[in-house]
Amino acid sequence: MSYFRPAVQSMSGYVPGTQPLDNQYIKLNTNENPYPPAPAVVKALRRLGGDKLRKYPDPSALQFRNPAAQMLGVQPDMIIAGNGSDDLLTIITRSFAGPGELIAYPWPTYSLYPVLAQIQEAQIVTVPFPDDFSLPQQLAEVPAKIIFVSNPNSPTGTLIGVEQLDQLAGKIKGVLVIDEAYVDFARDNCLKLVHKHPNVIVLRTLSKSYSLAGLRFGFALADPGLITGMSKIKDSYNCNAVAIELATVAIQQQEYLLKTLAKIRRGRKYLTSQLTRLGFTVLPSEANFIWATIQTASGRQIYETLKHNGILVRYFDQQLDGLRITVGKDTENRQLIQQLKRILEKPKP
Amino acid sequence: MSYFRPAVQSMSGYVPGTQPLDNQYIKLNTNENPYPPAPAVVKALRRLGGDKLRKYPDPSALQFRNPAAQMLGVQPDMIIAGNGSDDLLTIITRSFAGPGELIAYPWPTYSLYPVLAQIQEAQIVTVPFPDDFSLPQQLAEVPAKIIFVSNPNSPTGTLIGVEQLDQLAGKIKGVLVIDEAYVDFARDNCLKLVHKHPNVIVLRTLSKSYSLAGLRFGFALADPGLITGMSKIKDSYNCNAVAIELATVAIQQQEYLLKTLAKIRRGRKYLTSQLTRLGFTVLPSEANFIWATIQTASGRQIYETLKHNGILVRYFDQQLDGLRITVGKDTENRQLIQQLKRILEKPKP
Repeated sequence: MSYFRPAVQSMSGYVPGTQPLDNQYIKLNTNENPYPPAPAVVKALRRLGGDKLRKYPDPSALQFRNPAAQMLGVQPDMIIAGNGSDDLLTIITRSFAGPGELIAYPWPTYSLYPVLAQIQEAQIVTVPFPDDFSLPQQLAEVPAKIIFVSNPNSPTGTLIGVEQLDQLAGKIKGVLVIDEAYVDFARDNCLKLVHKHPNVIVLRTLSKSYSLAGLRFGFALADPGLITGMSKIKDSYNCNAVAIELATVAIQQQEYLLKTLAKIRRGRKYLTSQLTRLGFTVLPSEANFIWATIQTASGRQIYETLKHNGILVRYFDQQLDGLRITVGKDTENRQLIQQLKRILEKPKP
Repeated sequence: MSYFRPAVQSMSGYVPGTQPLDNQYIKLNTNENPYPPAPAVVKALRRLGGDKLRKYPDPSALQFRNPAAQMLGVQPDMIIAGNGSDDLLTIITRSFAGPGELIAYPWPTYSLYPVLAQIQEAQIVTVPFPDDFSLPQQLAEVPAKIIFVSNPNSPTGTLIGVEQLDQLAGKIKGVLVIDEAYVDFARDNCLKLVHKHPNVIVLRTLSKSYSLAGLRFGFALADPGLITGMSKIKDSYNCNAVAIELATVAIQQQEYLLKTLAKIRRGRKYLTSQLTRLGFTVLPSEANFIWATIQTASGRQIYETLKHNGILVRYFDQQLDGLRITVGKDTENRQLIQQLKRILEKPKP
């Protein structure tokens, strides 16, 4: 006998990438930014006093929403802040999809989507990506309450064009969630669609491009009607006072952001060319990671050997057998390539 | 037409107490601690570096759970950390109650319970407290998946004895959630019940007694079987890195905690006697707030006049017409009493 709901009892839960408690590893497994957050953010952290911790935070995070809205050309009532964009994905799932209703997404993608659907007892419809990882056309035919599109997609790093998602939003009856966690690394984004479609939700996070994964701060952009309804589902004080304060500073450090992005794009280019030379098939990445597969060796074995030698990457087995490699600092990228050379050149016993 | 689930569309959402964005008010409305967090906590905040912000936090918050377990005499696998105890209430609701299933609690109590039940489309059974605010005996008869008991209760401040809850846990088929947000201010607690009953969950928070409402950190204690299942429901990185770090320091500052508690208990005694002298009916409080009702005046009007004069308290109308007054610093408590004297002595026009 279980106290849990049967749906919860039978599911296995989301498994995040390893977060080792020591600093022994070169960590290229969870798409953290290898560069520190903007100096102004750390300075703001040091300025915080006990009173900030003592009092409840502003449930609406207005302090952040005002400058963010101005910067992104939206109204503040088109923004809702979350405890990381995972919090917003949870809020969205609970807002729009009840038991038995459909949640659809292309596959492979962020493996949290199925977990959230399972908790909600929603019915999952996965539509396989075509070989070029463009938008699967069948997605528009699914009568789903929610369609999730991670764009750029994880773990592939590929980007679907704005026009394709624009068309999809116009065709469907449910909401289209464009999860832009990695979009700052890409050449384009879908922000303008929130002005055009009342059913489009764009998700952003400060975890990746702003180097603030530890802070847990994301936000959603959508029509004010959607934002108001989603606010009923979120925990009142879902963002802590430190997160709101530092996110407000971080979003205003655009010059620093651009410098960091340039460095990561350079690293991405280096890794792409080097991995290709080593015999990997590498998809064109618009994110801060590379999706690499190889015919002549076992992905799992490469992953294990790298780990043994102090480098963590993410291995995905589900029909994929590939490695998702976060772009690190230049020295880290070079060490990875050196290790891979050694692994792949080693004659088989 | 709405994109939202009908249950979400029709509900009104939880309304938290006012968090004014300026510091003009004496804030006795949201049960914050008037005293600052322990100096060691603020010191630890200042020591944090950019790398703490850059990387994802430990999903299991082991750094906190180890010392907390030791202090509370439980195993670390009997603790799950949350983004405030509201996060844990959300996790519990989603873990144990599906659509149409029963969630029960005495009434009046924390008004988030009905909101969480509504989101989950669970059926709500409220059992009125008897006049002495002891445990309503009918609660044991409800075939509920979850019974919530806020203990000490909000907004009344009253405490149900451990033996009564011990018996209740043994009688019911679902889980018994003992929400001990205010328990550090009380003379007793139910922690020992988690060793005895596989269906008891005790909730704690650092928001009140530890003066860390802005940090958003709470935790649940229960049988490892319950904790493991609840971990599948929580967002992986539900606690941010700053919260885990500072909570770990805070929980080890027991001497400071005891000093703060003594001051608040003294303020509670002062407010209780003064409010009684002014003609209020005051329940015996085991929390950091007082529940006060008055026959000869309108609760709402007193609330409004206090607010106009710079003092925020919480007014509850739902069949109650009473004021929940957080115990403030001595000077704040005295100012409140002076204001109330003026309001109540004023001849009616």
